[in-house]
Amino acid sequence: MKTVIIGNSGHVNYAFRGAEVNPDIKICSAAPGIAEEDIGKLQGAVPVIYTDYKKMLDREKPDIAVIASHFYINASIAIECMNRGIHCFTEKPAAISFSDLDLLEKTQKSSGVKFCAMHALRYEPAILAAHEAVKNGLIGIPWIINAQKSYKLGTRPDFFKKRSTYGGTILWVGIHALDWIYWFSQSPVIEINAGHTAAGNSGFSEMESSCLIFLRMQNNAHASCSLDYFRPAGALTHDDDRLRIAGEKGIIEVREKNALVLLHDQKPFNLPLSAERSIFSEFAESIAGESKLLTGADEIFTVTRLALYAREAADKKQPVFIS
Amino acid sequence: MKTVIIGNSGHVNYAFRGAEVNPDIKICSAAPGIAEEDIGKLQGAVPVIYTDYKKMLDREKPDIAVIASHFYINASIAIECMNRGIHCFTEKPAAISFSDLDLLEKTQKSSGVKFCAMHALRYEPAILAAHEAVKNGLIGIPWIINAQKSYKLGTRPDFFKKRSTYGGTILWVGIHALDWIYWFSQSPVIEINAGHTAAGNSGFSEMESSCLIFLRMQNNAHASCSLDYFRPAGALTHDDDRLRIAGEKGIIEVREKNALVLLHDQKPFNLPLSAERSIFSEFAESIAGESKLLTGADEIFTVTRLALYAREAADKKQPVFIS
Repeated sequence: MKTVIIGNSGHVNYAFRGAEVNPDIKICSAAPGIAEEDIGKLQGAVPVIYTDYKKMLDREKPDIAVIASHFYINASIAIECMNRGIHCFTEKPAAISFSDLDLLEKTQKSSGVKFCAMHALRYEPAILAAHEAVKNGLIGIPWIINAQKSYKLGTRPDFFKKRSTYGGTILWVGIHALDWIYWFSQSPVIEINAGHTAAGNSGFSEMESSCLIFLRMQNNAHASCSLDYFRPAGALTHDDDRLRIAGEKGIIEVREKNALVLLHDQKPFNLPLSAERSIFSEFAESIAGESKLLTGADEIFTVTRLALYAREAADKKQPVFIS
Repeated sequence: MKTVIIGNSGHVNYAFRGAEVNPDIKICSAAPGIAEEDIGKLQGAVPVIYTDYKKMLDREKPDIAVIASHFYINASIAIECMNRGIHCFTEKPAAISFSDLDLLEKTQKSSGVKFCAMHALRYEPAILAAHEAVKNGLIGIPWIINAQKSYKLGTRPDFFKKRSTYGGTILWVGIHALDWIYWFSQSPVIEINAGHTAAGNSGFSEMESSCLIFLRMQNNAHASCSLDYFRPAGALTHDDDRLRIAGEKGIIEVREKNALVLLHDQKPFNLPLSAERSIFSEFAESIAGESKLLTGADEIFTVTRLALYAREAADKKQPVFIS
């Protein structure tokens, strides 16, 4: 599987990790997604660096493009690749506008290429273990789900400072929480309300420092996503990701890389963690027809649309009802 | 301060605790709030048991009534007491309908008696410590607040099974979380959305097993309350109460009776816990004019109204906008 990398503003490490565990994957070259993007850190990590990704595609004729440029341009780059019959593994969010997302989905379906975005937090071993347990009925139907993403702000590129290039914190951070909820919930979302604010963002201009999302499911289950960049520099880890799923038979809470289970008839215990899996390796396998991807294209589009609805609700300060 | 107890379906232990620490408080008698209420457990704990609380009020002429009968009747009993010039310390929620609450508030103002409901979780030493820290600016303006109340279901009286006698889980459990948020937030609530379901309630009929509340503040801060009766019997403690407050300068999280602080320039640490305080003793002192109550009547009415709005939003599956 000949693979090229376009851009270095996201988690291209997933691609390198995939190539490590899957010898069928050959990463042959990289190029910036836009002229002003610095991909200097890829020098030495890939055999060839191009300055123009379209020329790279023409020359290399890859099977797979890994796309991780500035967030606003990733959908356009993916569409460009799809139109050349190249399978796309792209940074999330798959798109930062409804129109980009619609065109991306249409192009993916008409081109027939495989598509996956980096909804990679499904692959966290504690999350995989929790999902397996919930799917097997350990806690009953999930009636309330609480997701949290709390990040250290640290240093971030300037394109995070503008909605037009960044897309918003609900899209960049919240999509992981929404992806968990979509995956764990046993019923579709019928209503999203949300709020966000750039207040307290330490000079990051339009970038939202914190967001809250409320979701109502068709079966009357509910879910929340709490998102923020307030995790202080003094905290022990970069992120404080949490996922709590509660049902009549028990509660599972993923936190600090463990999945704690509370049940009625026994003491609290941690689930055995699932084996490490590589999202990119599995994407490559799905192209070869060897497996079904955990995060298929249709789910990626659905979850991205949920994130866009949530951003819309937050912008308008009104819920979005989904029929 | 001559004190009587009406009903034994709530937290009358706050009154006994107050009498322990404040020798001015004399609990002289008790009566059921309604004929079918069993107050047998108060036998021996108070000198005299009456069968009719109105006769008790006529005979004893108390300074204070502690009211904790079935939830639907507490507002009416308080109004009866207020009309006799008796100060009221009542179980929360202060009322389970807007009309009861309006009449209660009107009667309290016209009668001039002191009024407090058992919003006692403000008095948890970790919560008091966290509030003091937030008030003093330790974490900056709170931009996102997440509250959780998760209870073991255990055995509960039959009147929990009907909305008309119970009021709803948002009112019974959620009011504590809303009280925290109201107290910690530095801006008024302008929008409440909510959801609740009785699904998975182990046969408790109309009683909601889980609820989620979304709050938008005027200053664009946001808050969530996650409420459930799903805490399994196997868990170590009855409740899993949490309150997380995040701002630009740091995060405070109250959990398991401690208040953990994360700041940018130091390692995580627990706040020194505040000294134990008795809500009922302080209520008695406020009557004597010796102190200002932490939970004044106007705040009780405001928070109860928030809970009623949240229940309305959950029932209608539509946000309530508060002007």
